Amino acid sequence: MSVRELIKKQGSIVVGGAYNAISASLVERAGFDAVWLSSFGVSIAERALPDANLITLTEMLHVARNMVATVNIPIIADCENGYGDINNTIHTVREFERAGISAVCIDDNQYPKRCSLYDHVDRQLIPLHDMVAKIKAGKDVQRSSEFVFIARTESIIAGCEISECVDRSSAYLEAGADLLVIHSRSWRHLLQVLDRWQARDSLVVIPTMFPEIDLNQLRQAGFKMIIYANQAIRASLKAMEEVLNKLRETGRSADVEPDILTLSRIHELVGFEGVRNNGNISAADERR
Amino acid sequence: MSVRELIKKQGSIVVGGAYNAISASLVERAGFDAVWLSSFGVSIAERALPDANLITLTEMLHVARNMVATVNIPIIADCENGYGDINNTIHTVREFERAGISAVCIDDNQYPKRCSLYDHVDRQLIPLHDMVAKIKAGKDVQRSSEFVFIARTESIIAGCEISECVDRSSAYLEAGADLLVIHSRSWRHLLQVLDRWQARDSLVVIPTMFPEIDLNQLRQAGFKMIIYANQAIRASLKAMEEVLNKLRETGRSADVEPDILTLSRIHELVGFEGVRNNGNISAADERR
Amino acid sequence: MSVRELIKKQGSIVVGGAYNAISASLVERAGFDAVWLSSFGVSIAERALPDANLITLTEMLHVARNMVATVNIPIIADCENGYGDINNTIHTVREFERAGISAVCIDDNQYPKRCSLYDHVDRQLIPLHDMVAKIKAGKDVQRSSEFVFIARTESIIAGCEISECVDRSSAYLEAGADLLVIHSRSWRHLLQVLDRWQARDSLVVIPTMFPEIDLNQLRQAGFKMIIYANQAIRASLKAMEEVLNKLRETGRSADVEPDILTLSRIHELVGFEGVRNNGNISAADERR
Amino acid sequence: MSVRELIKKQGSIVVGGAYNAISASLVERAGFDAVWLSSFGVSIAERALPDANLITLTEMLHVARNMVATVNIPIIADCENGYGDINNTIHTVREFERAGISAVCIDDNQYPKRCSLYDHVDRQLIPLHDMVAKIKAGKDVQRSSEFVFIARTESIIAGCEISECVDRSSAYLEAGADLLVIHSRSWRHLLQVLDRWQARDSLVVIPTMFPEIDLNQLRQAGFKMIIYANQAIRASLKAMEEVLNKLRETGRSADVEPDILTLSRIHELVGFEGVRNNGNISAADERR
Repeated sequence: MSVRELIKKQGSIVVGGAYNAISASLVERAGFDAVWLSSFGVSIAERALPDANLITLTEMLHVARNMVATVNIPIIADCENGYGDINNTIHTVREFERAGISAVCIDDNQYPKRCSLYDHVDRQLIPLHDMVAKIKAGKDVQRSSEFVFIARTESIIAGCEISECVDRSSAYLEAGADLLVIHSRSWRHLLQVLDRWQARDSLVVIPTMFPEIDLNQLRQAGFKMIIYANQAIRASLKAMEEVLNKLRETGRSADVEPDILTLSRIHELVGFEGVRNNGNISAADERR
Repeated sequence: MSVRELIKKQGSIVVGGAYNAISASLVERAGFDAVWLSSFGVSIAERALPDANLITLTEMLHVARNMVATVNIPIIADCENGYGDINNTIHTVREFERAGISAVCIDDNQYPKRCSLYDHVDRQLIPLHDMVAKIKAGKDVQRSSEFVFIARTESIIAGCEISECVDRSSAYLEAGADLLVIHSRSWRHLLQVLDRWQARDSLVVIPTMFPEIDLNQLRQAGFKMIIYANQAIRASLKAMEEVLNKLRETGRSADVEPDILTLSRIHELVGFEGVRNNGNISAADERR
Repeated sequence: MSVRELIKKQGSIVVGGAYNAISASLVERAGFDAVWLSSFGVSIAERALPDANLITLTEMLHVARNMVATVNIPIIADCENGYGDINNTIHTVREFERAGISAVCIDDNQYPKRCSLYDHVDRQLIPLHDMVAKIKAGKDVQRSSEFVFIARTESIIAGCEISECVDRSSAYLEAGADLLVIHSRSWRHLLQVLDRWQARDSLVVIPTMFPEIDLNQLRQAGFKMIIYANQAIRASLKAMEEVLNKLRETGRSADVEPDILTLSRIHELVGFEGVRNNGNISAADERR
Repeated sequence: MSVRELIKKQGSIVVGGAYNAISASLVERAGFDAVWLSSFGVSIAERALPDANLITLTEMLHVARNMVATVNIPIIADCENGYGDINNTIHTVREFERAGISAVCIDDNQYPKRCSLYDHVDRQLIPLHDMVAKIKAGKDVQRSSEFVFIARTESIIAGCEISECVDRSSAYLEAGADLLVIHSRSWRHLLQVLDRWQARDSLVVIPTMFPEIDLNQLRQAGFKMIIYANQAIRASLKAMEEVLNKLRETGRSADVEPDILTLSRIHELVGFEGVRNNGNISAADERR
């Protein structure tokens, strides 16, 4: 199943964010339609670095490939600003499509970007026509018609006028973007744009900063795709911090046993039954 | 601080297992003395693969380097069986020392190994003299005298006689191993070996399968180093599974907010304050 | 074009060995039918290490992907002994097929292997039935029916009887291998096996050690595929050694200009004309 | 030996460009003082891509580490524009220093850059004060006082006035750059700047485009460091193209034997004698 096929189906697409192979697998097992390969997640998990275009396309591809080897649902890669200009964007599309990724999401932030979750920074968008050129070029070089290009405008985040946000959104879809994220930290601001916007069936929302708006409300507002981008990694961090602190304080690993997954469940998750002792092919092995 | 320096200090060394940069950082922040780079953890987290010598030295090194870039406490790399024979072991020691790792742990399993946590598999050890040759070669090629070689015998796991376990343990230390893990899934079996063993100040324990034995008991039994190898990743998996399931079921991200780390705490963990807008050097930046 | 399609076509397949993207590109430009991704070449070029299972599956995959991104002819990956046992072989097939490689070649050397070009070493083969199990498992887990599994027996190199070589060869083809390399350092020994062998249309030859036997002779002997495995890297090394020595001795780079490729030819090779200044899509860009 | 120590010694430093481990080894064996890790070389060899900030810091680091594992002479990494802004530059310095690289060279091109060898492109420099901030930040975050920061101005290439070139050069050295490349495709233009410049003992030259100026002339002009950046890779490409074409045309590998390195010389280059059969440590093994 590709993201293209999910788009064709009626109803909304619910996507879960992941940052390594096992979190992607858990997203799949929980019943999400697709995986969001989060640059925020990879920056934090793999490098303990802030999300500011410090991690490279290569580091993202590394995780992308590990996910492709693991899950059967499609993967959407958060490719930030395409890691540079139009040439980097072309290279990005080629690399991710070749890696087996089903869709890329590329935004109109200047390189190097500042993460949309950070609020104390200057923020610059590239000119509208440069973003349009990136989108056109990205669509031109994709190999398979199944491949999906998601454009993302950070114009609300950057404090632009609503009219600019609408202009950019229209232009990006006209340039060939298959889906559009109008990114926002505020539900109210997002609604202001939606009021002036028709093509709801191409819209994607990432409701990190307005968790009180639930899935039904987002669907009713017309969003085709809803991305829960970073809840998994944040759950992971909170749990690890608590368990490690408890372990260090009490010195009793029995105390944390209720908070950690059993080994047998882990063996199940990674398909240990498929490892062979003697060369006979077991049915379990055929899974992957 | 190196593992060598920790050994010289009085008292036991308490080590926390990690599998990527951020979990290593959390181990450090929780006050552990060193990080255990777990092959079990990396197999599961990065590849969703069972721990059976499927992930490569290169994949382990990749994580090792990301950890070295992140933490200031020393890192001990679980190098399984050295990824092959004596030549692979030499190569392994060189690669990990060059990457900035403070100690390696290499066991006497045949390549490819079966994870010590799995019980339904045939298990073969390499001959004692081959393991002795690996240890000697590993010690010969280390560059810095600070570098530490931890030998690990899986003889209890493999069902050998206690006398063989004792013979191997003695031989490995005589060959130059700085520390020794007598690995066991059973506290009772481990005690049987300890009864016939003097050199307690070189012993390391990984109490995964006997969590009811607490840190004080392990210290009193004479262990110099205690490794909590996989509690962090297991906490991470349990939390992610629960949060993803809840999110998918209720469609309300507000419901999982109490279970996930706040963004401001995450910014703190990865030092976002160090990202500069304008080229002025902030004190925060000097951290890493 | 896949290796499978090349097999179906009448006539022999001529393959050139490469070890990085640009050498693969030169193989393609010279008119070879396919690229041989050489483990010998990668060991030497990328790591300056002897060919003894020191480089990992990951390091080979890294080069494989860079080649897949570069050439349009199919790539055959030399996967040595599959990097371990049957589980490693399954993993190897999955990883290389997923990377876009068209065929793998896996031999019956024990892991860790000794390169077939080295003659002063002990050499051990895995039992026939273990190799048969590897071949069957490899064929079972391939995704596409286009994927090709080349089995390679090192029995002549290892000094086995001709009858064992014939037995292994037959068994490997019966197990499902699509092609077979009966590797040899001696044309005479190879002919002795050929005398007792019918299924010539599945045979592959790597004539490194008998360069005096030319392509026509190899074709007439019935070989379906001829692999010139390492001439390119050896040409590269000789040329670099000479030019660097001359440069260091005379201190005049003008002296080596006749021996080095012009920059304009290099720009041509890597498609510099495709780099855009202004976002207009040039025809040149569509190339890759 | 570090680049810092080479600077302290009297006389000029002669550097050879390389792009993988074996070419670095050949540079060392030919008697050069240091290795230049060329981004041009890595783009072409590893990716067959034009030199336009398409390859990432990660891809360069990968090669850097393979070189560090191979040679004993110091390595200077061509880090282009630091892969972005001041934050990327800080990250770049940390990553390369941690990898064991002795010096980085960072230029004042805008990201993404256009290779200085290409002449048909628009070219933009970052403002002088931004480059000064990058240099200061790079020097601030280096760990060891041995680490060397080479600044490179592309002002001549970009067609700036000589006065701007002089202003930038002075400012970069004042900001703390240890060495300075005033890059030029023309010896005449370079001399025009030299006429207005005193601090010759900090100057580096890369005479790719004026090969008729020999080492003595460059030394007499006062250059402290001379970098032969790409002769090795260009020799490699020319030789491979010729040998592959000949092989394909004549079908006789005997014909190319005189043009390719012998296997015994290759075994020598990569230290095959160090591979052990039986666990006895041979003297040869201690080499690396």
